Amino acid sequence: MDLKQVAKDTAKVLSSYLTYQAVRIILAQLVETDPPRAYWLSNFSGKDRIQDGEAYLQALLKEKPDMAFRVMTVRQHLAEEVTSFLPEIVQASIQQANIEYRREHLERITQLNISDPIPRPEQQADEPNLDNLDR
Amino acid sequence: MDLKQVAKDTAKVLSSYLTYQAVRIILAQLVETDPPRAYWLSNFSGKDRIQDGEAYLQALLKEKPDMAFRVMTVRQHLAEEVTSFLPEIVQASIQQANIEYRREHLERITQLNISDPIPRPEQQADEPNLDNLDR
Repeated sequence: MDLKQVAKDTAKVLSSYLTYQAVRIILAQLVETDPPRAYWLSNFSGKDRIQDGEAYLQALLKEKPDMAFRVMTVRQHLAEEVTSFLPEIVQASIQQANIEYRREHLERITQLNISDPIPRPEQQADEPNLDNLDR
Repeated sequence: MDLKQVAKDTAKVLSSYLTYQAVRIILAQLVETDPPRAYWLSNFSGKDRIQDGEAYLQALLKEKPDMAFRVMTVRQHLAEEVTSFLPEIVQASIQQANIEYRREHLERITQLNISDPIPRPEQQADEPNLDNLDR
């Protein structure tokens, strides 16, 4: 398990995603203030193009530098404001989802066992927190 | 700019991506230890399916619970080991890329100005770190 490579790849995905979010924010602003530019940016930012945030920005920089600078500024702001919260949110949400899936799976197993003539209490012995499943 | 919503959406993308990375790691292990299961998991984990990590896990849990538990364990490990480094890497890489794009853009502008009869040194006045562009 090459954790360094995973961290590097994940950071790249995250950068691209924040670039996409920056474009979304700017689009929402332009729709209010300058609809023709919003229309142009929306057309320019097709789904295929924005998948790779860096390639997207380099292309935009050649077409409309001022717009590219705006995206760069907003994504840097997002990186500064948002990323520090991510480790906690992601760890908590993965932990929570995992607990939930284990619970659902145990429920499915125990429901199947209702028609089972032999009671098998040892199946729940590994999960002391799920006592209420015995009811 | 709804930073809370951006953080929430970004965390979701990140969770999904770590689920995908967990599947990749397990696939690499299974190719060595249990090729038929590697083949099965690879077929199950099509591109469309793995886009949403939570939907993917719920489907896998119904088909092969032991495999789903393995993915859940690995992604939690990744979340614990990798996410804490992300804020620093992402902020640094976005900052670095932004500097690079500004530099490239200035280079393009100044190259265009070679044919310009009037020297315009004030164009570089905002970028004190880019002195070597004057050469």
